[in-house]
Amino acid sequence: MEAEMTVAARTADLTGGRPVVPSRGVLRPLGLSEVRITGGFWAQRQATNGRATLDHGREWMDKLGWTGNFTAEVGHGSAERRGREFSDSEVYKLIEAMSWETGRQADPARDAEITELTAMIASAQADDGYLHTAFGRSGQRARYGDLAWGHELYCAGHLLQASVARARTSGDDALLNVARRVADHVCEEFGPTGRDAVCGHPEIEPGLVELFRATGEQRYLDQAALFVARRGRRTLPRHEFGWAYFSDDIPVREAKVLRGHAVRALYLAAGVVDLAVETGDDELLETVAAQFDRTLARRTYLTGGMGSRHLDEAFSDDFVLPADRAYSETCAGIAAIMVAWRLMLATGQERYADVIERILYNVVATAIGDDGRSFFYAHTLHQRSLTPVLPGDVEQLGFGGGPRAPWFEVSCCLANTARMLASLSTYVASADDDGLRVHQYADADIDTTLADGRRVGLRMRTGYPDEGTVGIEVTAAEPGPWTLALRLPSWAAGATVTVNGQPQPVSGDRALLRRDFAVGDRIVLALPMRPRFTRPDPRIDAVRGCVAVEQGPVVLCAESVGGALDLDSLRVDAGTDPAADGGVTVRGLTEELPERQWPYADAGPVGQRTTRDVPLVPYHRWARSGPSTMRVWLPTT
Amino acid sequence: MEAEMTVAARTADLTGGRPVVPSRGVLRPLGLSEVRITGGFWAQRQATNGRATLDHGREWMDKLGWTGNFTAEVGHGSAERRGREFSDSEVYKLIEAMSWETGRQADPARDAEITELTAMIASAQADDGYLHTAFGRSGQRARYGDLAWGHELYCAGHLLQASVARARTSGDDALLNVARRVADHVCEEFGPTGRDAVCGHPEIEPGLVELFRATGEQRYLDQAALFVARRGRRTLPRHEFGWAYFSDDIPVREAKVLRGHAVRALYLAAGVVDLAVETGDDELLETVAAQFDRTLARRTYLTGGMGSRHLDEAFSDDFVLPADRAYSETCAGIAAIMVAWRLMLATGQERYADVIERILYNVVATAIGDDGRSFFYAHTLHQRSLTPVLPGDVEQLGFGGGPRAPWFEVSCCLANTARMLASLSTYVASADDDGLRVHQYADADIDTTLADGRRVGLRMRTGYPDEGTVGIEVTAAEPGPWTLALRLPSWAAGATVTVNGQPQPVSGDRALLRRDFAVGDRIVLALPMRPRFTRPDPRIDAVRGCVAVEQGPVVLCAESVGGALDLDSLRVDAGTDPAADGGVTVRGLTEELPERQWPYADAGPVGQRTTRDVPLVPYHRWARSGPSTMRVWLPTT
Repeated sequence: MEAEMTVAARTADLTGGRPVVPSRGVLRPLGLSEVRITGGFWAQRQATNGRATLDHGREWMDKLGWTGNFTAEVGHGSAERRGREFSDSEVYKLIEAMSWETGRQADPARDAEITELTAMIASAQADDGYLHTAFGRSGQRARYGDLAWGHELYCAGHLLQASVARARTSGDDALLNVARRVADHVCEEFGPTGRDAVCGHPEIEPGLVELFRATGEQRYLDQAALFVARRGRRTLPRHEFGWAYFSDDIPVREAKVLRGHAVRALYLAAGVVDLAVETGDDELLETVAAQFDRTLARRTYLTGGMGSRHLDEAFSDDFVLPADRAYSETCAGIAAIMVAWRLMLATGQERYADVIERILYNVVATAIGDDGRSFFYAHTLHQRSLTPVLPGDVEQLGFGGGPRAPWFEVSCCLANTARMLASLSTYVASADDDGLRVHQYADADIDTTLADGRRVGLRMRTGYPDEGTVGIEVTAAEPGPWTLALRLPSWAAGATVTVNGQPQPVSGDRALLRRDFAVGDRIVLALPMRPRFTRPDPRIDAVRGCVAVEQGPVVLCAESVGGALDLDSLRVDAGTDPAADGGVTVRGLTEELPERQWPYADAGPVGQRTTRDVPLVPYHRWARSGPSTMRVWLPTT
Repeated sequence: MEAEMTVAARTADLTGGRPVVPSRGVLRPLGLSEVRITGGFWAQRQATNGRATLDHGREWMDKLGWTGNFTAEVGHGSAERRGREFSDSEVYKLIEAMSWETGRQADPARDAEITELTAMIASAQADDGYLHTAFGRSGQRARYGDLAWGHELYCAGHLLQASVARARTSGDDALLNVARRVADHVCEEFGPTGRDAVCGHPEIEPGLVELFRATGEQRYLDQAALFVARRGRRTLPRHEFGWAYFSDDIPVREAKVLRGHAVRALYLAAGVVDLAVETGDDELLETVAAQFDRTLARRTYLTGGMGSRHLDEAFSDDFVLPADRAYSETCAGIAAIMVAWRLMLATGQERYADVIERILYNVVATAIGDDGRSFFYAHTLHQRSLTPVLPGDVEQLGFGGGPRAPWFEVSCCLANTARMLASLSTYVASADDDGLRVHQYADADIDTTLADGRRVGLRMRTGYPDEGTVGIEVTAAEPGPWTLALRLPSWAAGATVTVNGQPQPVSGDRALLRRDFAVGDRIVLALPMRPRFTRPDPRIDAVRGCVAVEQGPVVLCAESVGGALDLDSLRVDAGTDPAADGGVTVRGLTEELPERQWPYADAGPVGQRTTRDVPLVPYHRWARSGPSTMRVWLPTT
């Protein structure tokens, strides 16, 4: 722990639009009402999200019957329930996204839509509080008969999160009341004397803790603790993917690293952090932090993406991180942000904000099409063949690294991305005992109070990540000193900071500017944005002998639209720094390799080499100009 | 085509115990009665196969109900059918293996067992010839309602192959009669005016052609031609794996490479070679040969293994051949041998025997446990963590590269390996217009007739593959010259041949010894067995900067039983030749790498290095001494 946790927020706080409100921690999160993104890279994406993505999600969920599943016709067996077992959760996540969006920017029509959806959901709730459209109703399977795959508690967890989002962004507690009844039912059914079981897909855990935080209802926290204690005892049935798939192989307190299905493992980890924070269990907090840290050190892609196996959407062994079969599911990226954010709030360690930034620019930003109506599910780091393009009205089967698709059979990524984008401003800054911390650089206005109640305002303006200069102006201040801390990304050696033109000392993971700030004070942070070569750990077999190029927080890639440039034979000269004249280029060559009958021999093939400067583009921009080949990791000459 | 095809065998030939009897081709295959393996590496495995594996297969198939599915209780709905849709095929493959085994070595008890199983199968056949235990009977799904996944024609194909094996190794045509009725039914149902459809899993194609060869019934060949013509028109339903999974994405004649599910693609390719040979369609033959050749050049592991994706058991893009997530299913290896053998018979190109040898020593030999009662399904080339050991009576779920398991939920590998081993001697040698060719080196006695009817006998003795000297003595000869051709493996530069002590010229892919051989003549082939470094094509990203070590046809690996030697940080000095003093060792080092929070940086980590000689073992021997880590591809210093 970097610093002692202090009580920085209260339970039962329904104001301010914060996704996570821990009752203790080094940092206090700020809400949508305290931080607004006003322009630049993320404002554009937030606008697209609010304008296109939410409607796109609603249209598809209506078309596929996922919303219709909540209606009486389905409930009474007179119409067929449609979609997979987890489709309810997509509706909940979409409501969560809509809620943050209305918190970000008032929208009466959207507000009415949430009210309409809430009523629809409430109508499907059983008298005893149970709520899932695929089980327990007329002609359906029995409740909790398939805990491994039924996703009943998983869906409930997302409902709980959505209800908290709604409550924290409006005066409407209708969904919260539905969620309380669901949670009460879960506590009844799975409580100390109830079913000794866990859900195949964690998610109820963070949902229950957040509902506890929103309502103060202790039994929700206790129930989360029970689920965490029960996990890892192999109560789920044996499966070809192994118990690790469900994080049910070994108890949470004994595990050393995240393993199995990446999203499952990460949602569980998020819930475990929440639980440890609320119960004061620092040993558990340290355990889950160590698991996540080891996962970062050994099981994470350069992009921040997690999960390298397609078969089971899972973490693989340490250092198994193939570029050309990267899985790196969008939802795992978002789940990793959830974990990193919770750990940062608890411990104050700024390096978790580095992780969040990396995932935001290289997974979340990559996932979304420019139109906000197409998505990546998985994120390959190396596309060898041209990706086929699907018609806009055809849903994608499977999860391949193909083009952004309008919809997937399993479309968890859309609403997950939407809720992250709509709530993104809450990840920009936080408060600690001594002042404010800025974690992410973007055009943003911050208006909040310090721990001692003094009001403070900041206006941040920047061309980041295209440019490295971040200007911050103090827009509100009250007398007396406090500390403004600016994150120094781990890649930003040589960063400088001035206050009103005066250079400030810079070292460590954040610049600490302590003074009696006055309105009009101007802080300028300059981050070095020269493109740089990055080398992988030698134990990552898949990218041995390769370099990547990063620029600021952005991972770059070589892309060949139409595939004309042979990326298979491309090699770059890692002894010559990347040039950044206009765009970024690296010195390289391609080689016309001879055809051989067998690709293994006592010596490699030699062909005609062509020296060339290879242009690189941000990875998040790839596959936007039509079918292309692409690679992040570039073999060296 | 290397040489004109000549009619080298007759259709409707039920003698001699040959798996494949083309009516034309450069080479004429020899049967179990003509070539016997008498000792050494493969004799030991054949003995284990006959003694243990066949019984092991029968015991599990009885226990799991796969044999019982053919009984009247299941047929009339009074007992539940058990197992997956393809379980019938395992019984058929087991009968095929038993048949070759009784052809190899008479065994009245086994013969009686085949008779018993035949009767059981015949009892389940419908009046109209249809035969599958999962469809069309009381309480079951309708016939051909699920062509993509039902495996009905796939099972039929294996039955046809088994029936031919039985007929060619015994006087019993009971199973052949069952198969004829099945084939007649298939021709009726799927004929020119029947269902315009294909099976999701090819296999009926080679089955029909072989049944045509065994019976002379033209409609079976015509039906195979129909199925091949229909493949690639996307008549199967859309699936997340894509139509390529079923080889149904593009017509056979238009495809450039094998793709999709590896076993499906290879079984189809085998049938296409058969079809092209029987119909005289040299264009089709060249097309499928080019597909296979490109697959060898770009989509095949060093071991000869094929298929690199776990998700869909499929070929990936060119050069995507990860070592640590190699799939390389046993059955794909066996299917590749089927294709290579058929292409060699048709074209006479000896390089296909190189492929067969590679797969035999590095996939087939690796698959089998020493006890003949445990198996690998998939063949990783890099095991990073210790493999758990399952109890002997527990079937393995999934296909992971773990330890050899007694049984898998999908256990196609067992019977496939068994039928290959039992018939292995038929791959040792063949006859051409001018004499004999020896393709594989093993202790073997050959007794056959040349194309002109002269009898010839050879006794081959060798310590191969542990030693490179192969001695061949002429044991029968009639006057007049003929050519004995000995394969020169592509790795065997510097091989020498003597006849009665006189050195012979050696060049190309086979040593051609043309003379008037006499009984007692002694030929000695000396193959260089010095261990050698092998380097991968630079486009195989997964093993860039690595070397492998091969010795003769055997791929070696570094193995650490118990995991004490850190193979993750191992690097070898590829400038110093492997030593072969007792065992093979390479000069190398391991490095104690420091813990880092993030595995990507401007420079790699540096740790304490320990120079060491690293012992290597044959890859086929790995994981026999308990849980271990292993790697075939060794990073270089």
